[in-house]
Amino acid sequence: MTAVEEGTSTIGTAFPGSRKTYLQGSRPNLQVPMREVALTTGDSVVLYDTSGPYTDPTLRTDVRLGLPKLRSGWIEERHDTEEYDGRPVQPIDNGLKAHDHRNLDSVFNGTGTARRALPSRNVSQLHYARQGVITPEMEFVAIREGVTPEYVRDEVARGRAVIPLNVNHPESEPMAIGRGFLVKINANIGNSAVASSIEEEVEKMTWATRWGADTVMDLSTGRNIHTTREWIIRNSAVPIGTVPIYQALEKVNGKSEDLTWEIYRDTLIEQFEQGVDYVTVHAGVLLRYVPMAATRKTGIVSRGGSIMAAWCLAHHEENFLYTHFREMCELMASYDVCFSLGDGLRPGCIADANDEAQFSELRTLGELTQIAWEYDVQVMVEGPGHVPMNKIKENMDLQLEVCKEAPFYTLGPLTTDIAPGYDHITSAIGAAMIGWYGTAMLCYVTPKEHLGLPDRDDVKDGVITYKIAAHAADLAKGHPGAQAWDDALSDARFEFRWEDQFNLSLDPTTARDFHDETLPAGAAKTAHFCSMCGPHFCSMKISQDVRKYAAEHGVDETAALELGMKEKSAEFVDGGARVYLPVVPSA
Amino acid sequence: MTAVEEGTSTIGTAFPGSRKTYLQGSRPNLQVPMREVALTTGDSVVLYDTSGPYTDPTLRTDVRLGLPKLRSGWIEERHDTEEYDGRPVQPIDNGLKAHDHRNLDSVFNGTGTARRALPSRNVSQLHYARQGVITPEMEFVAIREGVTPEYVRDEVARGRAVIPLNVNHPESEPMAIGRGFLVKINANIGNSAVASSIEEEVEKMTWATRWGADTVMDLSTGRNIHTTREWIIRNSAVPIGTVPIYQALEKVNGKSEDLTWEIYRDTLIEQFEQGVDYVTVHAGVLLRYVPMAATRKTGIVSRGGSIMAAWCLAHHEENFLYTHFREMCELMASYDVCFSLGDGLRPGCIADANDEAQFSELRTLGELTQIAWEYDVQVMVEGPGHVPMNKIKENMDLQLEVCKEAPFYTLGPLTTDIAPGYDHITSAIGAAMIGWYGTAMLCYVTPKEHLGLPDRDDVKDGVITYKIAAHAADLAKGHPGAQAWDDALSDARFEFRWEDQFNLSLDPTTARDFHDETLPAGAAKTAHFCSMCGPHFCSMKISQDVRKYAAEHGVDETAALELGMKEKSAEFVDGGARVYLPVVPSA
Repeated sequence: MTAVEEGTSTIGTAFPGSRKTYLQGSRPNLQVPMREVALTTGDSVVLYDTSGPYTDPTLRTDVRLGLPKLRSGWIEERHDTEEYDGRPVQPIDNGLKAHDHRNLDSVFNGTGTARRALPSRNVSQLHYARQGVITPEMEFVAIREGVTPEYVRDEVARGRAVIPLNVNHPESEPMAIGRGFLVKINANIGNSAVASSIEEEVEKMTWATRWGADTVMDLSTGRNIHTTREWIIRNSAVPIGTVPIYQALEKVNGKSEDLTWEIYRDTLIEQFEQGVDYVTVHAGVLLRYVPMAATRKTGIVSRGGSIMAAWCLAHHEENFLYTHFREMCELMASYDVCFSLGDGLRPGCIADANDEAQFSELRTLGELTQIAWEYDVQVMVEGPGHVPMNKIKENMDLQLEVCKEAPFYTLGPLTTDIAPGYDHITSAIGAAMIGWYGTAMLCYVTPKEHLGLPDRDDVKDGVITYKIAAHAADLAKGHPGAQAWDDALSDARFEFRWEDQFNLSLDPTTARDFHDETLPAGAAKTAHFCSMCGPHFCSMKISQDVRKYAAEHGVDETAALELGMKEKSAEFVDGGARVYLPVVPSA
Repeated sequence: MTAVEEGTSTIGTAFPGSRKTYLQGSRPNLQVPMREVALTTGDSVVLYDTSGPYTDPTLRTDVRLGLPKLRSGWIEERHDTEEYDGRPVQPIDNGLKAHDHRNLDSVFNGTGTARRALPSRNVSQLHYARQGVITPEMEFVAIREGVTPEYVRDEVARGRAVIPLNVNHPESEPMAIGRGFLVKINANIGNSAVASSIEEEVEKMTWATRWGADTVMDLSTGRNIHTTREWIIRNSAVPIGTVPIYQALEKVNGKSEDLTWEIYRDTLIEQFEQGVDYVTVHAGVLLRYVPMAATRKTGIVSRGGSIMAAWCLAHHEENFLYTHFREMCELMASYDVCFSLGDGLRPGCIADANDEAQFSELRTLGELTQIAWEYDVQVMVEGPGHVPMNKIKENMDLQLEVCKEAPFYTLGPLTTDIAPGYDHITSAIGAAMIGWYGTAMLCYVTPKEHLGLPDRDDVKDGVITYKIAAHAADLAKGHPGAQAWDDALSDARFEFRWEDQFNLSLDPTTARDFHDETLPAGAAKTAHFCSMCGPHFCSMKISQDVRKYAAEHGVDETAALELGMKEKSAEFVDGGARVYLPVVPSA
């Protein structure tokens, strides 16, 4: 990610032609933010909105204060949590040596307190759902998705959906990941080599959510990761996920064989107290699966997976994430952190797709899912990777079967290996398909995949591309309301309402810029044609003329055919209703 | 399209790390050009090559002379064609009035002669195939695709594949479109508002074929279209398609009701004598189908379709392309021009997909296919358009059924309407899927679709995106040899052969540029990691270390597990075989 250039921050700015609107729930502070696109017809279209308070110009946000704690009251009124003195922050948490004082300004952790469940209590949304309780969080999700609160509760209770919501991240706007809901997307961000400011780190996250990221994974490594994470969480309206093994590895100076459950557990507590909402845990990389990956074309391509494989080989012991899984579940339930069971053995190329290593691990993830559910801990399961189109459905079907419908969260999959530089596209094909088949969340891939670190433009390209994949999946699944967006845009297109067409686009700015490249004049935006075909060739214009003719002449087309339309045809021609008359753009 | 800037022409330059190679056929001048990528290992990978002589630096091309006439001898030795005085070029062919002398330099049509079948002879590849003849053209295709000549003949004879090859376009390198072959892609180009030079017009075509366009459709309108087309065909190594109704409409000043079969027929002859290889003919837009489109959300979105619908309504007569279809077949057979039966009633938005208008027309196209086959005329059938993922397969299945396996040639389909500016992506999803299901050729969509005219970058983005879709489809279909490309790139990736990874990419330049943005030093290209994860976190590196350890210690991994690997683990650690040792890039 590049630094935020002067004046490029989008914080505090709405989308063109849109305003923030709030749907009121059953209690005063249960207000669900949506993006309302005002049309030139006087109508408006209300869209799901991931961008948080940053796109409401009437709100003033301050990254040094963090977002308002939307859910604090909801959490406190349940009387099942306690505040306590959290684990003190140590230099090593920021990747610093004891004598190293170059740590960044930790603006938020002044109090050092954190929240967790009271002894013997379970504060997960899954737990509440199974008790029959509809939480404000569930109601929030229901309004956001246009379903009933009871539907949300039931989906969560069955494990078919998760609502990732650490009690230490009360700033977040509740959202659901499950195949009964809109398909979600995740964007990965990482810290800069040299973090220059809190604003810059926060901007990475708000940039991704502005374009539609439903969750953000902070994959930062190296210096200042604890502080950077704190900044991100305090300012994030979307759930934040992490891969704690990365930080644990930093704490042992990158020597995987020195990793221990104790170091890992301490890292989990550190992150849970900060408010991380879900964590990727590579507990399915079992010792006996590692040799299966040795004969692969590209071995193990998951970082976490390769770390655990190396640990298993070095110790010739079973993966400590697997052997301590139940202990982890207890910890997760205390904060309501959601598992994202990592697919450490996912295929890294087309040739390795759907092999024994991959599917063996998936079966283990199925076992772990059911163990987590014993503890009322929310779970989703991660999936591939690189898979040719003909092998994608098998992944989804097996996951549904062995993981008992726990939400699937896939990376792509990439459908070919031959296009580095365009892997947002190779993977969007697979992502759209697996989303249709039932995947609940799609982890984005940027054009820089396999080549380098994404910059600001790459992040946007990745997010927009994945919104396309997710929405195409919603359409194919027949998700209620999904098609209304397409219909609104199609109507605008047919009626040459250019402004509405731009404003309804996933990326209004780019749509407008592309149009203006060839028809820049303001007048052209009211033209009943575009630069592609010009006035003579515009099929939309011709269609409109045809339809208008039929309407004006009271022609029921089918009847007209029987009665003979010959005279009417002559009238059509004589009346000057020529379909190719150039339309002069009006001012 | 923008003008060719100084020094940006790619004519005469090979791909980085690649050289042109030729596979020798059964006769001296049957040499099939391929792109050979030399790997740093000493091996090479040979890839299908659409770029023509322009990427062979040992050949000198001159756009004012045109390409060598590769097939002239093959055509002449069949003794079934004759040269004759072609139709004289008229000012109106170039969109000029009789008194208008601003026509461009017609460098090629000095002789005015053209070639056609001798009376009562049929010169289509379909005709030869049905006679049991394997032509040099079929052998060329067989070598190019890695199949037997008899397979090619059989596929053509059954109508499952076409080889578009006008006898007046002997410059073209034979290629097959059919679902038993590699999935092909088409790029549309159009002339500039002001054509500045022959070089510029030709460059549009060579630019598209350089990146992988298998055919090019010249959709030029307005002035100088005849001359521009001549320039393009004389310099094109790929089949050229057109939509003759566009030019016919120009000849009647854009008044669709003034169109006649005679004007259209004259335009066909004009174009066939020039060497157009396939033509889109909207003969399936029947009068009785037009009212079906009136109730649609976006009516008729095909230009040709709307022109014919307007004509039908104006005259209340049946579409003259339908009523004169047999006459057209006779003409096509004389030059071996291939039908591309246009889908004038394709859906223009998600809401209109798979409706009565669309499928009624498709059934008519099925009837017309069989009529064309009566005349031994080659046929492909065009398809949608805008279709949600869940409705794509129905399109393919119905087309296969009613068109008796004639090749399907689709535009996308776009899987959602909400992303103008990114419709190369919304459509690549649908294109990849329908390619997998059996579509033979995919018509590209650029990022400018619905917004404006594509420029040079847009054309490249469209072509690369569609090569991805086509190749993903080839992989999913299990096309022999398709996966070898992915495997070669995956091997290079796993072994950190960066140069090979770039050179094997669909777009070597972009892959290299993206990599160099974050790791620019030359030394980094030999590094055993990349900027994404750095040396500590590289899973590929870790996998290699794990594999190397197993090999060095003679460990059969499965056996090792049984024997107990505890000691070996200690050895692994003691031996300093740490998996996270930073790799110092060697010079």
